[in-house]
Amino acid sequence: MLLHFTKMHGLGNDFMVVDMVSQSLRLPPEKIRRLADRRFGVGFDQLLLVEAPTNPDMDFRYRIFNADGSEVEQCGNGARCFARFVRDKKLIGRDRIRVQTAGGNIELNIQSNGEVSVDMGMPRLDPEQVPFNAQQRSVTYPLKVEGQVIEVSAISMGNPHCVYRVDDVHQAPVETWGPIIEAHPDFPRKCNAGFMQVVSTDEINLRVFERGVGETLACGTGACAAVVAGRLQGLLDETVKVNLPGGSLFIYWPGEGSPVMMTGAATRVYEGYTRL
Amino acid sequence: MLLHFTKMHGLGNDFMVVDMVSQSLRLPPEKIRRLADRRFGVGFDQLLLVEAPTNPDMDFRYRIFNADGSEVEQCGNGARCFARFVRDKKLIGRDRIRVQTAGGNIELNIQSNGEVSVDMGMPRLDPEQVPFNAQQRSVTYPLKVEGQVIEVSAISMGNPHCVYRVDDVHQAPVETWGPIIEAHPDFPRKCNAGFMQVVSTDEINLRVFERGVGETLACGTGACAAVVAGRLQGLLDETVKVNLPGGSLFIYWPGEGSPVMMTGAATRVYEGYTRL
Repeated sequence: MLLHFTKMHGLGNDFMVVDMVSQSLRLPPEKIRRLADRRFGVGFDQLLLVEAPTNPDMDFRYRIFNADGSEVEQCGNGARCFARFVRDKKLIGRDRIRVQTAGGNIELNIQSNGEVSVDMGMPRLDPEQVPFNAQQRSVTYPLKVEGQVIEVSAISMGNPHCVYRVDDVHQAPVETWGPIIEAHPDFPRKCNAGFMQVVSTDEINLRVFERGVGETLACGTGACAAVVAGRLQGLLDETVKVNLPGGSLFIYWPGEGSPVMMTGAATRVYEGYTRL
Repeated sequence: MLLHFTKMHGLGNDFMVVDMVSQSLRLPPEKIRRLADRRFGVGFDQLLLVEAPTNPDMDFRYRIFNADGSEVEQCGNGARCFARFVRDKKLIGRDRIRVQTAGGNIELNIQSNGEVSVDMGMPRLDPEQVPFNAQQRSVTYPLKVEGQVIEVSAISMGNPHCVYRVDDVHQAPVETWGPIIEAHPDFPRKCNAGFMQVVSTDEINLRVFERGVGETLACGTGACAAVVAGRLQGLLDETVKVNLPGGSLFIYWPGEGSPVMMTGAATRVYEGYTRL
């Protein structure tokens, strides 16, 4: 059976995207693992399956699988690629797309320049919601790292983030302090460790050591958490350009009580087909 | 401009193969580097361009480029993929294919099972041809590694190889001794370090630490050198199955004065096209 697919990436986070509305096939975990192999297969971080919705109020349903064949709930970079895919393939004509995901329903907006906006939800700031060990909520908290006490923000975007402000992101100790902050006992469910350099009130440079993964090219929730942290510290405007190693995202957050909007590119690399 | 390509691999050594006979396009080094990127591009170890021959006695010419955009002379795994490609694409009807490469003219034979045989040339056994520091030619030579003296073969297949016999290839010290043997002063142009386990007279297990690269999935010249070494030691038959981490090759070598024939699979993974 012939499987048609599109290879895409969002800031270097790469996806094999498959239209399961017009193609019918079975992809058990061992087949996903084989396809994920970058030498013996197609190669990708994640497989994105576009399906018909089971809820009639939604336009599509999508499912995301890691390279090991396990299903994951959500992925900001994947959501942008999904939106570009259904528009490019003319599976929908509208710019506003409602999608069912394993992590809940989301709405995506395709901008006139082809970039895609995703509602990333409300940041959670209470320490017990992050979760973070602190008596009461504060803009920053002291954190002990290798004998030094640094000031960090602790924010949840559905997953826990620690944001640490540095003078120069290229000199930041991501490799050494990343794993220490990730596993710090004050974050009982561990955390994603972000190193943020404020360039101006509307631009930051950011590197993120992702929980269980290591440093990545582009962490969408990390970009949101950094902008929330910077705004709460009075350093940033409502809309901020976030420069990550894989490219840039635009984050919009008016303030508490509002969700965080993330806008960024989704790039088609090639069209392919393979025999399963 | 649309670029059509085929993604292939030979024992996990992977290639983007492009028909430049019917497509006309320019691929400068910076474009090759972009295409080689496994997240932002197609992703491959090497790019293989199939061109019309400049010599009328030849069927094709092919050129191989590394992921960094530099051109290389030859590659056994690439030659097999080339042969499968021109047959599958019906660019030729014959099973015997004569090809111009930057490393000289070669002949390839497609077997009835789809595997491809490549003439890998004569092994060179004189120490000065390898090159290896020894007073006179011998079947094996003592080599001092980390205070121990081990017995190794020193053979050139166009590139220098050191073959060391081990009891169990999975337990072999490839990571620790590989770089030491590679840079051993007795190999003045360095060497590829092979760790060979003789399973029976017609089967070996092999791991190769490639010069300047590290351990690879499948080193074709290393498989040839190992079988030559094993035959000179009286341990192997004329035809030997060589099990490498990426898959198996069959090596045929009748003995001194004959070239080494290498037979193995070339696998098509998918067809693709992208806008350049």
